[in-house]
Amino acid sequence: MLMHLDMFKILAESEMRSAPYEFPEDSPIEQLEERRQRLERQISQDVKFEPDILLRAKQEFMKTDSATDLEYMKEQSQAPDFQERELVPEKEYQRVTISGEEKCGVPFTDLLDAAKCVVKALFIRQKYMGLSLQSFYRTAARFLQEFSERPLDLELCEEDIPETSFTAGATVHPPASKTHPYDNQDDIPSDIGYGCKMVNGVMHVYTSRASTELDLPYPDLQEYIADMNVMMALIINGPVKSFCYRRLQYLSSKFQMHILLNEMKELAAQKQVPHRDFYNIRKVDTHIHASSCMNQKHLLRFIKRAMKKCPTEIVHMSRGKGQTLMEVFESMHLTAFDLSVDTLDMHADRNTFHRFDKFNSKYNPIGESILREIFIKTDNYIEGKYFGHIIKEVMADLEESKYQNVELRLSIYGRSRDEWDKLAKWAVKHRVYSTNVRWLIQVPRLFDVYHTKRQLSNFQEMLENIFMPLFEVTVDPRSHPELHLFLEHVVGFDSVDDESKPEQHIFNLDSPLPENWTEEDNPPYSYYLYYMFANMSVLNHLRKQRGFHTLVLRPHCGEAGPIHHLVSGFMLSENISHGLLLRKAPVLQYLYYLAQIGIAMSPLSNNSLFLSYHRNPLPEYLSRGLMVSLSTDDPLQFHFTKEPLMEEYSIAAQVWKLSSCDMCELARNSVLMSGFSHQVKSYWLGPKYIKEGQESNDIRRTNVPNIRVAYRFETMCEELNLITQAIRTDALETIEEESLYMGAVHGRK
Amino acid sequence: MLMHLDMFKILAESEMRSAPYEFPEDSPIEQLEERRQRLERQISQDVKFEPDILLRAKQEFMKTDSATDLEYMKEQSQAPDFQERELVPEKEYQRVTISGEEKCGVPFTDLLDAAKCVVKALFIRQKYMGLSLQSFYRTAARFLQEFSERPLDLELCEEDIPETSFTAGATVHPPASKTHPYDNQDDIPSDIGYGCKMVNGVMHVYTSRASTELDLPYPDLQEYIADMNVMMALIINGPVKSFCYRRLQYLSSKFQMHILLNEMKELAAQKQVPHRDFYNIRKVDTHIHASSCMNQKHLLRFIKRAMKKCPTEIVHMSRGKGQTLMEVFESMHLTAFDLSVDTLDMHADRNTFHRFDKFNSKYNPIGESILREIFIKTDNYIEGKYFGHIIKEVMADLEESKYQNVELRLSIYGRSRDEWDKLAKWAVKHRVYSTNVRWLIQVPRLFDVYHTKRQLSNFQEMLENIFMPLFEVTVDPRSHPELHLFLEHVVGFDSVDDESKPEQHIFNLDSPLPENWTEEDNPPYSYYLYYMFANMSVLNHLRKQRGFHTLVLRPHCGEAGPIHHLVSGFMLSENISHGLLLRKAPVLQYLYYLAQIGIAMSPLSNNSLFLSYHRNPLPEYLSRGLMVSLSTDDPLQFHFTKEPLMEEYSIAAQVWKLSSCDMCELARNSVLMSGFSHQVKSYWLGPKYIKEGQESNDIRRTNVPNIRVAYRFETMCEELNLITQAIRTDALETIEEESLYMGAVHGRK
Repeated sequence: MLMHLDMFKILAESEMRSAPYEFPEDSPIEQLEERRQRLERQISQDVKFEPDILLRAKQEFMKTDSATDLEYMKEQSQAPDFQERELVPEKEYQRVTISGEEKCGVPFTDLLDAAKCVVKALFIRQKYMGLSLQSFYRTAARFLQEFSERPLDLELCEEDIPETSFTAGATVHPPASKTHPYDNQDDIPSDIGYGCKMVNGVMHVYTSRASTELDLPYPDLQEYIADMNVMMALIINGPVKSFCYRRLQYLSSKFQMHILLNEMKELAAQKQVPHRDFYNIRKVDTHIHASSCMNQKHLLRFIKRAMKKCPTEIVHMSRGKGQTLMEVFESMHLTAFDLSVDTLDMHADRNTFHRFDKFNSKYNPIGESILREIFIKTDNYIEGKYFGHIIKEVMADLEESKYQNVELRLSIYGRSRDEWDKLAKWAVKHRVYSTNVRWLIQVPRLFDVYHTKRQLSNFQEMLENIFMPLFEVTVDPRSHPELHLFLEHVVGFDSVDDESKPEQHIFNLDSPLPENWTEEDNPPYSYYLYYMFANMSVLNHLRKQRGFHTLVLRPHCGEAGPIHHLVSGFMLSENISHGLLLRKAPVLQYLYYLAQIGIAMSPLSNNSLFLSYHRNPLPEYLSRGLMVSLSTDDPLQFHFTKEPLMEEYSIAAQVWKLSSCDMCELARNSVLMSGFSHQVKSYWLGPKYIKEGQESNDIRRTNVPNIRVAYRFETMCEELNLITQAIRTDALETIEEESLYMGAVHGRK
Repeated sequence: MLMHLDMFKILAESEMRSAPYEFPEDSPIEQLEERRQRLERQISQDVKFEPDILLRAKQEFMKTDSATDLEYMKEQSQAPDFQERELVPEKEYQRVTISGEEKCGVPFTDLLDAAKCVVKALFIRQKYMGLSLQSFYRTAARFLQEFSERPLDLELCEEDIPETSFTAGATVHPPASKTHPYDNQDDIPSDIGYGCKMVNGVMHVYTSRASTELDLPYPDLQEYIADMNVMMALIINGPVKSFCYRRLQYLSSKFQMHILLNEMKELAAQKQVPHRDFYNIRKVDTHIHASSCMNQKHLLRFIKRAMKKCPTEIVHMSRGKGQTLMEVFESMHLTAFDLSVDTLDMHADRNTFHRFDKFNSKYNPIGESILREIFIKTDNYIEGKYFGHIIKEVMADLEESKYQNVELRLSIYGRSRDEWDKLAKWAVKHRVYSTNVRWLIQVPRLFDVYHTKRQLSNFQEMLENIFMPLFEVTVDPRSHPELHLFLEHVVGFDSVDDESKPEQHIFNLDSPLPENWTEEDNPPYSYYLYYMFANMSVLNHLRKQRGFHTLVLRPHCGEAGPIHHLVSGFMLSENISHGLLLRKAPVLQYLYYLAQIGIAMSPLSNNSLFLSYHRNPLPEYLSRGLMVSLSTDDPLQFHFTKEPLMEEYSIAAQVWKLSSCDMCELARNSVLMSGFSHQVKSYWLGPKYIKEGQESNDIRRTNVPNIRVAYRFETMCEELNLITQAIRTDALETIEEESLYMGAVHGRK
């Protein structure tokens, strides 16, 4: 490769000499590249990055210093007119428009049927999101409104947010941390003396101990089953399938074209922004497990340090007698010196591919469960001291990196009632907190295991163990002071297990109710998800009443196993992790697109477990405009460097040739779908981030060109319009409006 | 994904439930994985990693503390019997043997012809390596010896190395640095009063100014052309082609089988070694360019710091008047704050694919050559002060990492006679030195450019500018004191440019001699390489006479362009960089295998320029046993993290599912093919690293299992034996031994 740096000019001349088409072998990719280049060479003429653009750019920005640590107010004042100025370039980007009668290439009747189904499905999701106080994509909501008798209730409308919160933004994050968030034990709210009781697997709340029931919207099982059946019928409906497939293809090629025509402009826009680049935009790792958030080298060093520092500390009880760390290692015939990443043996290797069981046993350092017990558990003889320390080291690194944030998963198993308190005590005692970190609670779907172990007699017990403490602490925070403080930083629930495990049972009206679920088999995925959803919904309404923040459902979904997991995910959860199987379910993929459901993908993790890297659908999803982000899942097993999230981005960029603009879009998505507060998000993405379209984007913070945001928004509107338009046209002819959002699908039966 | 860490046991039971074959879609890969797993499950029974193995392992190693910083002598004493003990396991690994008459699956006559050609080719390489005092693979040499009248002269025989040097190892590295290597100006050797004159493009040396010529082996152009033609005829010979292709296929599948049978044992062996793992084995980045060895973020930070610290320093002359750093930026309408990685715009993006020219202009920060001039050049108004500083920052990081080492490329262009002195003065003045760093000199093939610019009238001038100073400093070190000191740390030459540029000229006897090369066209690749080789050979003999270290040729070769570049590489150079095109030249690939020619590959760089990542041949080369290593080439453009080399390894491991053993083998190769001293290598790889087979391996330092080394060695011996055996058998029948290593190919004409 030519490293003689003076010569680039001459080489530029010699371009025709070394033109691409002179290369012998041309892979499709390379041919594509060529075409792209030719096109660009023409386009780039008028948008080439010239000094005078730079000059304008500078004049534009010199007065507004947009360093992230700028006071909030200042930007507040300048943002609007900044937006005006910004609008100009977007007006003139290259748009792709389709003209003609049948815009979508299918006969009107097919379009109409499909449209009805899609709208139906969106209404279903909207209903359940509303019921549980989770968010529903506002643009879709706006388009749906005309068919709804209910008034438009957009989650997070401006009025919901006190104007102050906007201005509060900057001061809120980083918090004025004169007092540690775990310290204000005194100003914990008081008891409101409600009582709680679980009925048919759903918690019910009563004013004063078990008298009159509180009027909270309780989900209706029968209705849910009905809706689920509608969805199931809908996703296998042939014509709808081919319609959605067509649209997804269309979205892919439209994006391809958009890139060919506007890539240079997007690049130029990014360059115009002073100071900001991919390295200093906010990123959230929206799917990562606390017990494996450190990389192997880190864990190894930590273990060695622990053995040096406190070899004589009692760390473990075996047969009634305490064992010191030294004794533990002696029992394994090991010294600190012996340890290496190889002996640790926690890295996923080729043999974990499609071997979830094997993969899981990888969680034992040196294949010794005892070391895991000692070092990466919150609930052990030393009360998770070591684990707390190592997590805090990870937090310190994150804070140093400043722009990388994580949402760590901690486990609640539902085996006993005190799990929450123990977990909260661990967090509070060891002060495991960081402004860069929020918590998610993962509930493993392992009822069958506890049941066979005689730890649980029926499924309702599990639900009670999981939710009762949450209701108690919401009713009377002082009853679980640590839990109340800890909960402040918990954003939601995750549901985890090997989805590829076969399910013996189909969830329907004949399914036993939780208290009657006493059989050997594990309840199916949808059963778990529904009851977590139901209890969370009630809890959220109670918490809203009390002015506490609400929680969301963000399960692992569609990593493997049957497609219908993705149906439950679509109906009940705000975001999902993985969603690999959407690539095999066009209808659902299209719905996930229209509803902009967040999908946290972890290609490196998939690569080791379920799907080789180059076959991962992420680049396809991204091109179609699904709301995807990159997450690490499990740095301990999959990552090598000290910056796992950057490593994940780097590999994706390299293997899939993502542009800097794609990367920044992924990062922006990760913040949008994260559980960080509205204030924090307005601070990271711009004060208007909840608005629609390019208005929501502040390139000075996100480094995402408005062109890209505008393209996404306009494309989405066309898509939603195509569908609603069809129904509208049809509506004019038919009388019974009813049939519109009632049983589009029943009608087809 | 299941994160419930207690449950691995239960899951292990549920293995049959979630067995891989229950998955709907099976890609070939996945099917392979399955077969692999079944096989392994059987095998692993008898080699499973049990505590008692660990116990033995520990007992074995506790007495020998093999921390890298252990004194050398101690290991010296224990290594032998350690080796004995180590031998045991290898005896019992699963071997693949072929029985039957025609072992190689081709009729004897074809085998014989092919064998003769291959041996012929190897003799040619051996000749040129000997002539230039570069190294030739000793095992191949041993097998060839019986057909050679010349006595076996193995490069680097034990006798060549003073016994002391072994024991010196530890003390040599890190050097007893009481004095900085650039400080001992006084003990520079004295003049021996030879004179040098270039004749027909090759430097000749005379005792005392221009009297009788010194008796040094001068390469013979005619012989070289003849040999080259032999090689050219040989690589396009049909039967030989299919023979080599067959053997390469055989090597692939044999390795595949070896892995299926021994992967678990290799893993166990790695685990047995205390302390050592992939992170703490020595790695050398054998192909990286000094001017882009820092990543973008680093360069950006450095520029910003410079603008903060010394805005008023004069850094540049434009039209006779000095410009301060501030003025330079003002002239670009930029402030430090404006700068971002995007504005820097030095990252290779999709548009550099197959666009070498474009790629090269990427070397201008903000597309402004002036910034490059100021910050990443050694020879500018501030005498490369900034560049020196940033390189030293990179060096500091490397020393901190301890295990990562690099061989940085610096440019000598051959436009003027003082380039060497300027470069050396830069290094010495700014003390640019590190024990983790060695230098290579890259010579861009740009005669045509200088010629059109009237800077050079003929090609010989360029050669004189490059080599005269080296001869002068070798004859009389005091004539160029800095160069003498700098040269101590230079290991060889690299030849660089865009290989895909079409070549107007074929190198043959009619080609004009260097002093007559005055035409517009650039001399072809082979012409450049031959004359660099020829002069380097003479220089090496002179340097050997004086007791100075010798240099090697390690050009960019086979990155793109015509295959015959790889022929020149095979004949003249000790190592090459890239070698991508070997995938299209079976004969050459087979020869590069048999001669174990080092190939430094940079898949990320290729991915941006010439070949998509997933199509890169590295994993294939590795499986066949070619001597490949991983290098970054150009972190500034291709890498995101602070540890580019680790990033390169990480991505390779992830995308190609390399095992820890593969990774360690790549790392060991990188050290073997690097230019670090014999002492350093013995210290990094083990005192016997130059021996053959597993004896050469010290797993306690390389973390490469002896099984792997033994497999490679035995496979190589079988291969070499197959070939020599054929000739031997044939020899018994025929009388004229002559025809053996004479004109195997002529015979076919």
